[in-house]
Amino acid sequence: MHNENITDEIREECGLFAIYKHGAEGSHLAAQTYIGLMALQHRGQEACGIAVGHNREISFHKDTGLIEEVFKDEKIIAGLEGNRAVGHVRYSSSSSKKSKENAQPLVLNYAKGQLAICHNGNIVNADVLRKEYEQGGAIYQTTTDTEIVAYTIARHRIGSGSIENAVFKAMKILKGAYSLIIMSPRKLVVARDPHGFRPLCFGMKADGSFVFASESCALDAVDAEFVREVRPGEVIVVEEGQMRELTDLCGTAPSKICVFEYIYFARPDSTIHGQLVNDSRRLAGKLLAQKYPVEADIVIPLPDSGVPSAMGYAEESGIPYVEGFGKNRYCGRTFIRPDQLSREQAVRLKLNPVKKYIEGKRVVVVDDSIVRGTTTGINVKLLREAGAAEVHLRISSPPFLYPCYYGTDVPNFDQLISHKHSVDGVCKIIGADSLAYLGIDDLPKIVPDLCDTGFCNACFTGNYPVL
Amino acid sequence: MHNENITDEIREECGLFAIYKHGAEGSHLAAQTYIGLMALQHRGQEACGIAVGHNREISFHKDTGLIEEVFKDEKIIAGLEGNRAVGHVRYSSSSSKKSKENAQPLVLNYAKGQLAICHNGNIVNADVLRKEYEQGGAIYQTTTDTEIVAYTIARHRIGSGSIENAVFKAMKILKGAYSLIIMSPRKLVVARDPHGFRPLCFGMKADGSFVFASESCALDAVDAEFVREVRPGEVIVVEEGQMRELTDLCGTAPSKICVFEYIYFARPDSTIHGQLVNDSRRLAGKLLAQKYPVEADIVIPLPDSGVPSAMGYAEESGIPYVEGFGKNRYCGRTFIRPDQLSREQAVRLKLNPVKKYIEGKRVVVVDDSIVRGTTTGINVKLLREAGAAEVHLRISSPPFLYPCYYGTDVPNFDQLISHKHSVDGVCKIIGADSLAYLGIDDLPKIVPDLCDTGFCNACFTGNYPVL
Amino acid sequence: MHNENITDEIREECGLFAIYKHGAEGSHLAAQTYIGLMALQHRGQEACGIAVGHNREISFHKDTGLIEEVFKDEKIIAGLEGNRAVGHVRYSSSSSKKSKENAQPLVLNYAKGQLAICHNGNIVNADVLRKEYEQGGAIYQTTTDTEIVAYTIARHRIGSGSIENAVFKAMKILKGAYSLIIMSPRKLVVARDPHGFRPLCFGMKADGSFVFASESCALDAVDAEFVREVRPGEVIVVEEGQMRELTDLCGTAPSKICVFEYIYFARPDSTIHGQLVNDSRRLAGKLLAQKYPVEADIVIPLPDSGVPSAMGYAEESGIPYVEGFGKNRYCGRTFIRPDQLSREQAVRLKLNPVKKYIEGKRVVVVDDSIVRGTTTGINVKLLREAGAAEVHLRISSPPFLYPCYYGTDVPNFDQLISHKHSVDGVCKIIGADSLAYLGIDDLPKIVPDLCDTGFCNACFTGNYPVL
Amino acid sequence: MHNENITDEIREECGLFAIYKHGAEGSHLAAQTYIGLMALQHRGQEACGIAVGHNREISFHKDTGLIEEVFKDEKIIAGLEGNRAVGHVRYSSSSSKKSKENAQPLVLNYAKGQLAICHNGNIVNADVLRKEYEQGGAIYQTTTDTEIVAYTIARHRIGSGSIENAVFKAMKILKGAYSLIIMSPRKLVVARDPHGFRPLCFGMKADGSFVFASESCALDAVDAEFVREVRPGEVIVVEEGQMRELTDLCGTAPSKICVFEYIYFARPDSTIHGQLVNDSRRLAGKLLAQKYPVEADIVIPLPDSGVPSAMGYAEESGIPYVEGFGKNRYCGRTFIRPDQLSREQAVRLKLNPVKKYIEGKRVVVVDDSIVRGTTTGINVKLLREAGAAEVHLRISSPPFLYPCYYGTDVPNFDQLISHKHSVDGVCKIIGADSLAYLGIDDLPKIVPDLCDTGFCNACFTGNYPVL
Repeated sequence: MHNENITDEIREECGLFAIYKHGAEGSHLAAQTYIGLMALQHRGQEACGIAVGHNREISFHKDTGLIEEVFKDEKIIAGLEGNRAVGHVRYSSSSSKKSKENAQPLVLNYAKGQLAICHNGNIVNADVLRKEYEQGGAIYQTTTDTEIVAYTIARHRIGSGSIENAVFKAMKILKGAYSLIIMSPRKLVVARDPHGFRPLCFGMKADGSFVFASESCALDAVDAEFVREVRPGEVIVVEEGQMRELTDLCGTAPSKICVFEYIYFARPDSTIHGQLVNDSRRLAGKLLAQKYPVEADIVIPLPDSGVPSAMGYAEESGIPYVEGFGKNRYCGRTFIRPDQLSREQAVRLKLNPVKKYIEGKRVVVVDDSIVRGTTTGINVKLLREAGAAEVHLRISSPPFLYPCYYGTDVPNFDQLISHKHSVDGVCKIIGADSLAYLGIDDLPKIVPDLCDTGFCNACFTGNYPVL
Repeated sequence: MHNENITDEIREECGLFAIYKHGAEGSHLAAQTYIGLMALQHRGQEACGIAVGHNREISFHKDTGLIEEVFKDEKIIAGLEGNRAVGHVRYSSSSSKKSKENAQPLVLNYAKGQLAICHNGNIVNADVLRKEYEQGGAIYQTTTDTEIVAYTIARHRIGSGSIENAVFKAMKILKGAYSLIIMSPRKLVVARDPHGFRPLCFGMKADGSFVFASESCALDAVDAEFVREVRPGEVIVVEEGQMRELTDLCGTAPSKICVFEYIYFARPDSTIHGQLVNDSRRLAGKLLAQKYPVEADIVIPLPDSGVPSAMGYAEESGIPYVEGFGKNRYCGRTFIRPDQLSREQAVRLKLNPVKKYIEGKRVVVVDDSIVRGTTTGINVKLLREAGAAEVHLRISSPPFLYPCYYGTDVPNFDQLISHKHSVDGVCKIIGADSLAYLGIDDLPKIVPDLCDTGFCNACFTGNYPVL
Repeated sequence: MHNENITDEIREECGLFAIYKHGAEGSHLAAQTYIGLMALQHRGQEACGIAVGHNREISFHKDTGLIEEVFKDEKIIAGLEGNRAVGHVRYSSSSSKKSKENAQPLVLNYAKGQLAICHNGNIVNADVLRKEYEQGGAIYQTTTDTEIVAYTIARHRIGSGSIENAVFKAMKILKGAYSLIIMSPRKLVVARDPHGFRPLCFGMKADGSFVFASESCALDAVDAEFVREVRPGEVIVVEEGQMRELTDLCGTAPSKICVFEYIYFARPDSTIHGQLVNDSRRLAGKLLAQKYPVEADIVIPLPDSGVPSAMGYAEESGIPYVEGFGKNRYCGRTFIRPDQLSREQAVRLKLNPVKKYIEGKRVVVVDDSIVRGTTTGINVKLLREAGAAEVHLRISSPPFLYPCYYGTDVPNFDQLISHKHSVDGVCKIIGADSLAYLGIDDLPKIVPDLCDTGFCNACFTGNYPVL
Repeated sequence: MHNENITDEIREECGLFAIYKHGAEGSHLAAQTYIGLMALQHRGQEACGIAVGHNREISFHKDTGLIEEVFKDEKIIAGLEGNRAVGHVRYSSSSSKKSKENAQPLVLNYAKGQLAICHNGNIVNADVLRKEYEQGGAIYQTTTDTEIVAYTIARHRIGSGSIENAVFKAMKILKGAYSLIIMSPRKLVVARDPHGFRPLCFGMKADGSFVFASESCALDAVDAEFVREVRPGEVIVVEEGQMRELTDLCGTAPSKICVFEYIYFARPDSTIHGQLVNDSRRLAGKLLAQKYPVEADIVIPLPDSGVPSAMGYAEESGIPYVEGFGKNRYCGRTFIRPDQLSREQAVRLKLNPVKKYIEGKRVVVVDDSIVRGTTTGINVKLLREAGAAEVHLRISSPPFLYPCYYGTDVPNFDQLISHKHSVDGVCKIIGADSLAYLGIDDLPKIVPDLCDTGFCNACFTGNYPVL
């Protein structure tokens, strides 16, 4: 079978969740974490895990697979008892062979007892640190940056007085993108890199539980009230039912939340730094309609991520919005294609053009991005076979020109169709009648509510905040 | 864990698929059937199976689970070789204990060799026939009506000259709803009850393959051209690369396609008897807006089935359509709720109200139906907690007042909230500000393209076509 | 991988167990059946199942695999509650494709409610009956004789007044070998064919439980006292805490317990019809030493089945007994050979000649039987490579000359090396210095304690008691 | 369910296997390792793994379970290609929660590339080293000593010039028992602690493959010729088809092979340091008969480990050897006892006294050891229930008085019945008529062929060679 990325989507690489409730017993917090991770499943479908802390002891379960698969046996959750829990969902950018070993939380013993570490992001100086630590005798059992984070903290723990101070020191050494949730023998420690590339927010439940999650939709899922973002550069410690902040690194670097979270990664019902994701997507669609209008009969989305932008385009242009593709909700991102089937048949299975709507029509198709271009080409072909008179493609992000080093799998130059071809060239390759992208200068306009932070657009501009 | 029907949805009970290609070898047709069943997965998620015929021998694989689960090991499909294949997805209305035994196709030996039988529907005189056959020494190894169908055919096969004649004779005895796909040692036989309760259509692939499927979306998935519906009362035989029809039962009963296929069961991109399902839903929304207007700020759907109706309502009323609920695409209909979680939390995980859109707003919510009312009540509560000023519920079908005996799991009277309470009563119970249903007399209006057939509305009216 | 029968052993095809305790509740009896089947696992390792009766309802679980695998999830046993339980272990003589469907107990509905049927044996007129029933419209969902048994009972149930009478009538029709355990809505019915080919015994537990099992070792395992054999031709009914017998068929045919049960199938610690199996094997070894002496240095067994016979040979001959083969206890009868390995390597993995004991020695090797001769040839080769000066093979049964029609898998003529070659010819093919078999006339001598019954030796003589 | 050690056996903790063939390609060596590990399965049944090296890259698969389970999917072995392979079977002495993480080979990245490490033994200064490394920032992801071994090697690799030199340096630091097999980017390195506590031998295949294994039975299984033991203190390097030795540590400590390998752990067909294991056991039985004779009617073994000693006792005493216990070959050491069953019933399932042999007899029972005494007591009780007139227990090892720190799970003082009670006291507790153990001074007599080495008897004497 072909375990390929049928829909040629960019993948987020992780989602984080943590909950702490003073005095909690039993497996209630593990169950909350299960729910929180379910709400974050879109951020990683390859592996997942939950660790809980009871007194000074950490127990955990993790494996490759979706949350419902990995925690299928109800005894697993029931056996994870404690007053704090952390969870993780992930994609692996490394070889699948290693994926079981790379599942998180990374649970380890070190000089001060046990730690469970959950990490979302990418450490750009990981190779340098890896080599440095190796010279001191370090061994690596995974291929994740998380292990580098762990070593960095462990090396600073002696003499730091506390785990949070060790984390703080580690943050001065680690360069790149990271949101971290760490469980120590007594504490929950949460941290975010000074640029704040990857999202991380904080909420409270009515019962006094502290909750942290990559996206606000996970707070909603566990009925926690959103309180605020974890600030870029901030370290938060929860201990003995109290929360403290270390803020010395806040403001030491420009805020750089990943703009592609708004365009594609995050769930539309999540609010990140004050900006509702669904709004960003609608706005992108409206901007496309303003800047790249076209005479057409219908606007259709590539479901599901293209839906809000297509709605925005339709609203702005006055062209009717139509659900032109039927979507098969049962072949997820991980759909396995049997050997006997062509890639085209796999795409067709997932997205079925509705001939009645398309036949003879001039169609505007709105999608969030084009990576390699292969799937987009098949979609255009399917629309033409369904009788589309014209196919005009509108993309709610700028062209991918540069790889991402901050925790997504935007691939290298040679695989990015926009790096190798002009917009006209891409349009020809995929067979569309016209093609237009959101402009770089439009990006600020799709996040008008972004309260207190800038954003990273390096994959579109090559302006890497840190390297 | 609680294996409950979190979202209180009515379940279709089966989907059928078959393909025949003269001279075909290898596992290509099994792979096509895999794809066809993937496209029909929404019609049954509890068990599935595929049988293939090679010369006079039938081999098969079936089990409980989704198609991707049951056929996960690629060797299974690769081992199913033949020139014809039939497949089935199902829900079980009986106890889960029996579900493995009840998986279809039902593969059996009888006087004339092997048969593989796939059935969608419900035989209303099954109990009578069961007792009759029992008196003759019959034994039953499943609790499905399919076994009654099998016995009825087997008993008429001797002296019938052919399997199709035996099927034809059986159809005179079997009362109720059935679409059948049967594979005999040399033939593929397809039949539909004279009322045509459950859909079944026929298509051709460019390579000369004959394809049959419950819905046209499965023809699309395997790139087959829709040719026509299997007619109510018709028997089709495919043999030696030729297709023949037995039509003597066609027209002997009024056509009664299930109208709830249009409202909820079928995929929106399927066309049944000439009527595009998505259009029916949009129309239902428009009709609701015309007949039950309300002063409101936004229209929101209960995703996913409420989306087209909500769009229709918004379009007709001019009230803005907003995606007011974020949907978790990873907890399917079969989501298992851990013991530690309340039903409310499970619903919240699946549907997350977007506070920014809802707060302070008068909201029209469009859903397809209300069965027991429990989930609807939770949804209204979630909207109020999110700050909705008013919640007006519009249902794109009439109230369920009667159980269904034709192959769906519309439950018995005592569980139907509308059977026990007036519309006002239901409105109070679920806590909405207003509640309105599509009228019985509106049903014909939502299927204007329905080409050559009437429909069954017994669950709303009690007018049972056959009992 | 090669799923071959590495050790070329003959396979018994089934083991039965049942327990009834008046007023029992919970899953205690299912657990006892689990233990009873564990003790009978040697009689069938391909599939197994347990059914329990609670009031008039039967629930069950069965699948392919060993008992520990099929009932691995402790919830399965815990969920099987009732006051009576039946269990089955089996080999399949039919194609592996069908094995899941063929697992027993066969649980069915018929005119009088539910039945669970467990069968050990082979119905010689199954094909005749199958065709007769087919003409009446019967359908078959398995390829087992058990289904023929079920139909025969079901057809006679109407008008029989009771299940036991129906079983009694069925016994007059069924020809061949069968031990049956049947659970009806209120009763446990146990029966054995008039020849009594396959063993079946009865015991009581101190708590008043009635226990039935293929071998006495299963009674021992559940701490039941052996009471007596189920008599050939007998029907036993347990109901309302009472046991009754129907004995009209007892004595209507000569007793014909399978002698190969003593030679190979049964566990050495089982007593069948008064004869301890281990004693039979020791005696066979002694007889071989008396009739086929040889100048040799050591006697070694093919473990495990050859051990008692080799001990007998050593004791009688005065030649030292030595454990000349190390046995790998972890590659069972179902050992799967990876593609990369030769058959010889697989045999070597299982049986490792101890060079120190064998080198330069004249070796007598005692085994229970030779079927195809391939594995025996490899074993002789391994002994020569280990330095054996001479290899003398002594077989504790006569040569297989005829297939078995009574429930074992002694294969057809063309696969039996002794059917195709003389003893001398076999000796040359397998490369031994001498070869001798137990004589036909010695068979009575190895079962001196056999209390009240004759035995079947058809596989050695062709004297088939029933055909 | 109760996952207890039903038979109260001491568990070896590991088995090692490695094979190197210059220029080998494909998965042949992985398949050989599969076979080698199958032959060593008795040394560890909790987890297993295989790693192969191809050029500088290591790929691997490991998990909890038996070898046949973990490598059930044939694609796993087929995907492990290379010219060298290492494998491991293990028990876990730590909590089961951690077992998946603790499976070996431990595969890691360090300063010089990848390593795969297999370890059998116990590092007595592991805690000291662990703390030392922790102070330098080390993190631990398992709870095995293997990780300590890995860090020790990694810390000395820089500046050592070669992996073998690093291993050599590490051996000066590591105290305790260890046999090691290490695969580096180009080499296979094999080492044994200077005392040689745990066995490790070397053989060659006719095709030039170098093979290393914990026991010679694994060499036999892959048809390798035994060449010699890996010497205590020796480091062997295989590289570019050549083998070299580092012998500077040989002879620096007295040889101390674990004597319990001969008594219980090793397979009887293995030869360790020139001593055939089966011979040791027979001799132990003879010595018991000489020193502790008793008037009795039969000698019976506790199968399987007591068989050779019971044979020796019978031979020396002239009392007939009888297989007094039937053994269930299907409940392995890992047998899971369902909740509904008593421990006694679980023991009875495994070992079934043959009443015919035992009733009215004075019985000598030979077993290899008594740990906690619970199971022994049940066995004595079962024999008395079977009618034994007298039960005399003879143990083929001295009483366990001290825990083992060298890689077995002989438990702590408080669990050792012999530490808490005199021989007479133990005899009373278990209910035997007499009880005698092999003497400390008899130990040398059971290993007369032991060629060039002394042995460790610390568990009997407290004379710990290293602490």
